Amino acid sequence: MNTYGKAFRITTFGESHGTAIGVTIDGCPPNLELDLEHIQQELNRRRPGQSKIVTQRKEPDQMQIVSGIFEGKTTGTPLTLIIWNQDAKSKDYSHIATKFRPSHADYTYQQKYGIRDYRGGGRSSARETAARVAAGAIAKQFLAQKGIKVTAYTSQVGNIKLTAPYQQLDFKEIEQNDVRCPDPTLATQMIERIKEVRKQGDTIGGVISAVIENTPVGLGEPAFDKLHAELGKAMLSINAVKGFEYGSGFDGVEMLGSEHNDLMFKDEEGKVHTRSNYSGGIQGGISNGEDIYFRVAFKPVATLMRDQESIDTEGASVTVQGKGRHDPCVVPRAVVIVEAMAAVVMLDFYLRQQAYQ
Amino acid sequence: MNTYGKAFRITTFGESHGTAIGVTIDGCPPNLELDLEHIQQELNRRRPGQSKIVTQRKEPDQMQIVSGIFEGKTTGTPLTLIIWNQDAKSKDYSHIATKFRPSHADYTYQQKYGIRDYRGGGRSSARETAARVAAGAIAKQFLAQKGIKVTAYTSQVGNIKLTAPYQQLDFKEIEQNDVRCPDPTLATQMIERIKEVRKQGDTIGGVISAVIENTPVGLGEPAFDKLHAELGKAMLSINAVKGFEYGSGFDGVEMLGSEHNDLMFKDEEGKVHTRSNYSGGIQGGISNGEDIYFRVAFKPVATLMRDQESIDTEGASVTVQGKGRHDPCVVPRAVVIVEAMAAVVMLDFYLRQQAYQ
Amino acid sequence: MNTYGKAFRITTFGESHGTAIGVTIDGCPPNLELDLEHIQQELNRRRPGQSKIVTQRKEPDQMQIVSGIFEGKTTGTPLTLIIWNQDAKSKDYSHIATKFRPSHADYTYQQKYGIRDYRGGGRSSARETAARVAAGAIAKQFLAQKGIKVTAYTSQVGNIKLTAPYQQLDFKEIEQNDVRCPDPTLATQMIERIKEVRKQGDTIGGVISAVIENTPVGLGEPAFDKLHAELGKAMLSINAVKGFEYGSGFDGVEMLGSEHNDLMFKDEEGKVHTRSNYSGGIQGGISNGEDIYFRVAFKPVATLMRDQESIDTEGASVTVQGKGRHDPCVVPRAVVIVEAMAAVVMLDFYLRQQAYQ
Amino acid sequence: MNTYGKAFRITTFGESHGTAIGVTIDGCPPNLELDLEHIQQELNRRRPGQSKIVTQRKEPDQMQIVSGIFEGKTTGTPLTLIIWNQDAKSKDYSHIATKFRPSHADYTYQQKYGIRDYRGGGRSSARETAARVAAGAIAKQFLAQKGIKVTAYTSQVGNIKLTAPYQQLDFKEIEQNDVRCPDPTLATQMIERIKEVRKQGDTIGGVISAVIENTPVGLGEPAFDKLHAELGKAMLSINAVKGFEYGSGFDGVEMLGSEHNDLMFKDEEGKVHTRSNYSGGIQGGISNGEDIYFRVAFKPVATLMRDQESIDTEGASVTVQGKGRHDPCVVPRAVVIVEAMAAVVMLDFYLRQQAYQ
Repeated sequence: MNTYGKAFRITTFGESHGTAIGVTIDGCPPNLELDLEHIQQELNRRRPGQSKIVTQRKEPDQMQIVSGIFEGKTTGTPLTLIIWNQDAKSKDYSHIATKFRPSHADYTYQQKYGIRDYRGGGRSSARETAARVAAGAIAKQFLAQKGIKVTAYTSQVGNIKLTAPYQQLDFKEIEQNDVRCPDPTLATQMIERIKEVRKQGDTIGGVISAVIENTPVGLGEPAFDKLHAELGKAMLSINAVKGFEYGSGFDGVEMLGSEHNDLMFKDEEGKVHTRSNYSGGIQGGISNGEDIYFRVAFKPVATLMRDQESIDTEGASVTVQGKGRHDPCVVPRAVVIVEAMAAVVMLDFYLRQQAYQ
Repeated sequence: MNTYGKAFRITTFGESHGTAIGVTIDGCPPNLELDLEHIQQELNRRRPGQSKIVTQRKEPDQMQIVSGIFEGKTTGTPLTLIIWNQDAKSKDYSHIATKFRPSHADYTYQQKYGIRDYRGGGRSSARETAARVAAGAIAKQFLAQKGIKVTAYTSQVGNIKLTAPYQQLDFKEIEQNDVRCPDPTLATQMIERIKEVRKQGDTIGGVISAVIENTPVGLGEPAFDKLHAELGKAMLSINAVKGFEYGSGFDGVEMLGSEHNDLMFKDEEGKVHTRSNYSGGIQGGISNGEDIYFRVAFKPVATLMRDQESIDTEGASVTVQGKGRHDPCVVPRAVVIVEAMAAVVMLDFYLRQQAYQ
Repeated sequence: MNTYGKAFRITTFGESHGTAIGVTIDGCPPNLELDLEHIQQELNRRRPGQSKIVTQRKEPDQMQIVSGIFEGKTTGTPLTLIIWNQDAKSKDYSHIATKFRPSHADYTYQQKYGIRDYRGGGRSSARETAARVAAGAIAKQFLAQKGIKVTAYTSQVGNIKLTAPYQQLDFKEIEQNDVRCPDPTLATQMIERIKEVRKQGDTIGGVISAVIENTPVGLGEPAFDKLHAELGKAMLSINAVKGFEYGSGFDGVEMLGSEHNDLMFKDEEGKVHTRSNYSGGIQGGISNGEDIYFRVAFKPVATLMRDQESIDTEGASVTVQGKGRHDPCVVPRAVVIVEAMAAVVMLDFYLRQQAYQ
Repeated sequence: MNTYGKAFRITTFGESHGTAIGVTIDGCPPNLELDLEHIQQELNRRRPGQSKIVTQRKEPDQMQIVSGIFEGKTTGTPLTLIIWNQDAKSKDYSHIATKFRPSHADYTYQQKYGIRDYRGGGRSSARETAARVAAGAIAKQFLAQKGIKVTAYTSQVGNIKLTAPYQQLDFKEIEQNDVRCPDPTLATQMIERIKEVRKQGDTIGGVISAVIENTPVGLGEPAFDKLHAELGKAMLSINAVKGFEYGSGFDGVEMLGSEHNDLMFKDEEGKVHTRSNYSGGIQGGISNGEDIYFRVAFKPVATLMRDQESIDTEGASVTVQGKGRHDPCVVPRAVVIVEAMAAVVMLDFYLRQQAYQ
């Protein structure tokens, strides 16, 4: 299923080294004046080659909108955005054509479909997420009009952790360093760690934290489409994600109810608030107006610059060799993907709630 | 949205203290000989009053199947199963009719819908999950025919953690104690902890771990309906859940790729396996035939036997008092809910994959 | 698939002679004060035994709402409505247990599912439509608040046709006669024809016409969910329906564009109108504010009081005998079903359009 | 909603005079060896300028597949096919930029979305159906492997009707004449009629009949997704369609049950058949193995080469002038569209039924 969303529906398509990747957005609100430059900037945040700690592949990721826009505005009809692949055909993939790379999707795609485009991982490549970033950029532009803001940042690389709560961070710092961690000191350490790991031909995991500010009360559709359940699904659908938690998350398990409960009060302006926010801005699957925050765990990238034991399509033992230029750590480039999917989810729920207003 | 699933679709309905709760299953495979006693047993595993560490409310949870079954077998038409509520009307809810209980869904339901059935939490009550357990029991019966087995157990209560990997556990121990932890020593500690917490009128969180054995290769529908993404959504849609991780999860973040990658080999019987299983049985969102395993974090129950600060529907400051009989810890009863939702997800993907065989 | 609708979703369940039939409505707008008597009245319009020209079976069709309602109002949570079957088990169905009745769904259900509940047609019985009528009644109540009105009537029985355009009819006459035709003279003829046909142990077809007044401009979701495409699907999903046309319909085929085009003008009150309405109130799949009107063709009922050639489940030649009490013509009772499904479609599109307001 | 289908899902995008139109197919069975030439041939059957009785616009409609194909085969991942528009920007649309053309979707799109791409009708143009034809061609290729064959033909233009049942027709004649009527004599008359009408700057309607041969028993998903209900929706979603009937259709209304019932028997080869086929190959919404046949009514094209009264976007009275090159009758080019949508529906149900095998 390559479509996500009920009201704001995105359908992505394309393979890593096919002709193009892209996305069709159906249900985009009409009359939205698109800021194309902003979409491109978002794509640039995900783009390979943007800094020294990410893959040095050259993919300009320039987009073309082929439908759904008229005189600079969305028309309410399907908006298709294409990012053409460059020089895809010239590369040599014979080394993986018949071998299954460990912890990639090579084997599972082959078994599921009986065929796979092995070039660069084909459909299972994280390149698919560029399409999500484009869709997310458009969602962000709409949400911004309603005051809703999505921010993500790197909060962990290997065992280097940013433990300060998000309220103490300066989000303006996020884009000031290559690893996108708002704490400059930790950022430097994380960058060092990534470089070190890369030197060893190895890779390492990380965590991305996200905050959604200024959400109206009432978004989320229980019992199954709880707001955090869809945020979770959306995050888990991103390549390399192994875990999702929101609000108090796994740590909340050790708390007592008397510590964890978020007591309610009315502030001086008459607005309802909670004294703490272990709920993470969501109660019973519905936004309560407090900040929504969550964390997403990314495993170490599976492509190593090392030899690894594996099997080929015939089941024979083979050695898979490390080749090409790959990310030693996925999180710096994944920050914008997390934001994008969060924005898609939020806009979808925003529109779904509108139906009953 | 009260429907979950694409091929095996469950729609739940009902409020905690309304007339009944229930579920309609659409897309249930026909000709499945239903074991009604097994469904009831599963409901009993979730039922209040089953042991000393759960709520002492009396809800027999007896079910009635009103459609979709003929001569003991499913007919492929919608199967509706109803669990009647008992004596619902006799209770007094005036103490919460106009007050918002902290960290419950009272406030968000009121704001979203402009109305709420406040009796026992209405639709937001975990009583809704009885309907899921019934549906899950049916899913389990089908999966069992294909050899697929879902097992969940309590692996943490507060800070008491079962750290042994599931392979070292004896699953037969799970149902031997009230907390459903397969390690008898830890189980005793957990039970003590829960009793202690209850004595204080307080509550505590926990973690449930789950394992799915014998999954065929190929289940899961990328890019968005990845197998673990739907498992995650399904788990996060359960009341009180704050986090989900599978395979290496959040801990995998600290690993190197060279440690984390699951090397492939063919075993003596010619079956493909991986030497480790940090992938958690899923690669690229598709099952690879190894065991699937995941962990689900539950927050402490929000209902305390204590006074708490809050506001009423007019926004005035009020004290919410603890009343009634409630669970001090949700995990013992939630084990079967986790299994049920996992079974629903697995059957849904099983059928979806069948479409292309 | 037993669910219809995207925003206002109805899921029906139940077999003709099982325990009950019913419907779950998910996405019902909250705070709708339900008029239960009106729902029952609508069910009575579909009920067997209501007049001399319909089946004389006794089915009181009394409904019970088991969820989604609180203090007389909808809560926005799933609303389940059950109609219990009476004395279902006492009847004898041995004469059709192993025989396939001609032009029924006996053979196709058996082949599709490998099992069927043969009692009274099981799930394929038109009794399922009682659940739709209940859901439609609720949809009508909401639409009425917005001024939208759905009216259906019998316009043909056999070759007796009401050819007058709906504007010339007095809709108050519809419920004044047993066949629900607003022209009293034709109604008498139709009733005579039905009685005659019944005397011969035979059955006859008919046409139901429908008009939807006061629809706001803008409902319908092209390219696929065009308003008339969903109206068509909804009508075609009703038992015994063989055709659907709207606006000029099949007759429009013979017209020239210069005759058929609906010229636009602004009336004295500044409202946009068309001089003719061959478009049937829908252009490009979206309502234009004019009346929507359409016609639905029903085949003659397949159950005859005669012997018919057929085969049994083993493929042997058998004679199927006519038994029981059945409708000689389906249209008098189907008028309310057409209205119900039209109301469900309109409310669904109303809510879907709201999402973008 | 620009997506159709549950298992085989097509999402179309693009405007008549935007950059491109296209389709993404999600759920396409993998390992299908695509015959690209066949897809192009199907597009050519819909293409403007193909004969003297269709519009003389020049649109080569050459397609490009940008994803989902590898070494000539489908991969099971989304297949996106793009048809680039030619010289779209050079044309002058100032004459309709602020005017609503009668019986077009100009007014309804403007009111629904608050904006519209007026160039050539934008999204509401029948050019969108080229994308459906491409998807349908792929569906046909899969169905052909299963022996299922979809054939459509022109059976009426204005009042010139082909009344012979399809069994008496030679389908090889269909593509032998410009109007695609399998009766050469009637074809000549129809062509003459269309030329005559065009000379007058007018347009005329028509009917397309279709036959689906060799359908397996068991396709269709009651209660709502009955096979004929989805065929009906799919047909009604095609531009200019005003009606759909299958089997005996509207004529069946006048028949008696004793005439209409299709008696069952087993033929010499032991295959179950019906003596007549008024059911149109579908009983209870499920295919019974007999031929499926249906008729689709198309209104006269709304674009006339004449002056017409209308209003502009300000509501002022204006004259809309006929300009450009348009079809005097839609049916010759729509034959392949009807086939395409029928093929899409059939494949979707084929896969859905597979899920339960």
